Amino acid sequence: MLDEAFKAITPEMIGYVAATLTTLSFLPQAIMTLKTRDTESLSLGMYSSFTLGVLLWLIYGICISDKAIIYANAVTFVLASSILSFKIYNTLRKKQKA
Amino acid sequence: MLDEAFKAITPEMIGYVAATLTTLSFLPQAIMTLKTRDTESLSLGMYSSFTLGVLLWLIYGICISDKAIIYANAVTFVLASSILSFKIYNTLRKKQKA
Repeated sequence: MLDEAFKAITPEMIGYVAATLTTLSFLPQAIMTLKTRDTESLSLGMYSSFTLGVLLWLIYGICISDKAIIYANAVTFVLASSILSFKIYNTLRKKQKA
Repeated sequence: MLDEAFKAITPEMIGYVAATLTTLSFLPQAIMTLKTRDTESLSLGMYSSFTLGVLLWLIYGICISDKAIIYANAVTFVLASSILSFKIYNTLRKKQKA
């Protein structure tokens, strides 16, 4: 019976569970950063690389028509690019003050 | 000519660049955590969810035979599961002390 249950698991299901888990694990940090707008502890270089990477994963998902990849990276991209915008805004404001 | 260059970009290339960027952006934090073994500021729940998610992405990549997904998530899984092991070890040791 367990064997039957395992056979019923499709790669698509695995992809969706994977997408949900990695997106969920990113959410609390993202929400906190968006609420407090405190981006002091974020590295601009690392975060730019992450956001661009997520955007390229999204484009890749669209290219190979893979819904799990599209879904995971679309949500993450919206959050990551918002955080990156705050980071850039804060960095520029700090430079103006200095 | 720029048009020709764009036409030469395959989805596979986009996937590899995406994989490299998201993996690279995770590296410095991972290396720092593995060096200091300080996992105090990591949430056990969030990190477990992330590590399991990355493992499922890896299985998904193997299922659909997608090299970019396999490569990105194999590297991230090794790092994330090592960090998670430290986190679990530190959490258990703290409980024993208390």
